[in-house]
Amino acid sequence: MSALASLLFRGEQRISALDAGDRGLAYGDGLFETALVHDGLVVWWPAHLARLAEGAARLRIPMPDAAWLGSQLAAFVAQAPARAVLKLMLTRGAGGRGYASPDAVEPTLVLSLHAAPAPMATPLTLRWCDTRLAIQPALAGLKHLNRLEQVLARAEWRDPAIHEGLMLDTDGQVGCATAANVFALVDGRWLTPPVQRLGVAGVARAWVLANEPAAAEAGLTPAQVESADALFLCNAVRGILPVGRLGDRSWAPHPALAALQRRLGRSEPAFDPGS
Amino acid sequence: MSALASLLFRGEQRISALDAGDRGLAYGDGLFETALVHDGLVVWWPAHLARLAEGAARLRIPMPDAAWLGSQLAAFVAQAPARAVLKLMLTRGAGGRGYASPDAVEPTLVLSLHAAPAPMATPLTLRWCDTRLAIQPALAGLKHLNRLEQVLARAEWRDPAIHEGLMLDTDGQVGCATAANVFALVDGRWLTPPVQRLGVAGVARAWVLANEPAAAEAGLTPAQVESADALFLCNAVRGILPVGRLGDRSWAPHPALAALQRRLGRSEPAFDPGS
Repeated sequence: MSALASLLFRGEQRISALDAGDRGLAYGDGLFETALVHDGLVVWWPAHLARLAEGAARLRIPMPDAAWLGSQLAAFVAQAPARAVLKLMLTRGAGGRGYASPDAVEPTLVLSLHAAPAPMATPLTLRWCDTRLAIQPALAGLKHLNRLEQVLARAEWRDPAIHEGLMLDTDGQVGCATAANVFALVDGRWLTPPVQRLGVAGVARAWVLANEPAAAEAGLTPAQVESADALFLCNAVRGILPVGRLGDRSWAPHPALAALQRRLGRSEPAFDPGS
Repeated sequence: MSALASLLFRGEQRISALDAGDRGLAYGDGLFETALVHDGLVVWWPAHLARLAEGAARLRIPMPDAAWLGSQLAAFVAQAPARAVLKLMLTRGAGGRGYASPDAVEPTLVLSLHAAPAPMATPLTLRWCDTRLAIQPALAGLKHLNRLEQVLARAEWRDPAIHEGLMLDTDGQVGCATAANVFALVDGRWLTPPVQRLGVAGVARAWVLANEPAAAEAGLTPAQVESADALFLCNAVRGILPVGRLGDRSWAPHPALAALQRRLGRSEPAFDPGS
């Protein structure tokens, strides 16, 4: 899906094209955020900005000035349709050859607007992916630009009846879907894998952990997921997505999940299924 | 170090600038090669091309036609100084948003020429890096564009007296240097870690394995490296680099290593220390 509009900056300077020596391209040396734009506002923007800032601090990429970024974004999303997707990439900028960072870093910022994806017909049908997630605490939690694992996992199926794939880590524990976090209802608690060794600290995941008293981080085995009382995926573009099928297992709609979806819809009207 | 010259293609079509939605930028969804150019020729080009082709097959990125690529490269390096570095990046091309590959992939090819780096004063001084290499068989061996681990490791030191850093994997075994493979002389054999679970199948590494009867793949512990009789790094730009110091350990020049360097210089005059 190509962009409806895009805007590039080197530092705070508009540029017309990306430098072919950008470290974002050369090494995936950067971060991104994908957010829902609804009625001219970026949904959960403070959480996206906080995650971006944390990633920039951990990778030591200078963060854009918050006020400057806010005003650029506001002007940029003003042109968006009523429902759209904002993608933001922040890289360490042009750097030529070699892993060592240049002495003076001028980060590259790419903003792009995309048409909102067609809604997924829920409940979702999932599969298990063969591609495993590597264990890398130095990068865990970040939404960084090194995403070949997700690309390989997503390339495992083309059947449009399969909506998403669940990935295990190299130890055999459940990690996440290719583009969403996962929660499983086990013994009355909504459990989601921690993101200290791998995975992305999803913005929707954080909303669930903060707003659902029965939600908690816990390691999950594939057997626990398959025997869970209910299962859902979540991300910042699609909100909460109930799962109806995973391999041979199927789930009927669960009242606790419907209640959580209603609560999300009241908190963020962009995710109100009736909206 | 910025490029002396660069050339971009979408498929076989020249383009003037990279699409901001290129999957190389968005996901590190691509591969690269870094080669020495010497007297107008790309040193070890067949080995670079073979590795690129293997990586493209594993990532299912269409390879450029070999004859077309060869003629583009020949014209491109004809403008190079007597000694230079060629960098080649091949990505899955523009793809917008989402991990799923577009149905029709038009790969992006970026060629760039860079000044040859200043020679490193050998023997090298190394350090151990804190950043670990994740275990990921699906990507191991490939020179792909997901290089944040190397970026983080190289950012651990700024002391110019330290030439390179050795990285362990998350199991505590020795992996490689940030931008080179490593060989340790243990009980009369030159051992280098395998690249089936992590690491890059280096072109210089392959030359050593093919041309030094005492060389072999074997797992190495940090203690084995520190107690080795000799140690060297190697890569396709710098050839073989003897190590003189690693932390508290120091090594005197070793005749077997000097002999291997002479053999490399006879095989590839670009690496002849007297050249």
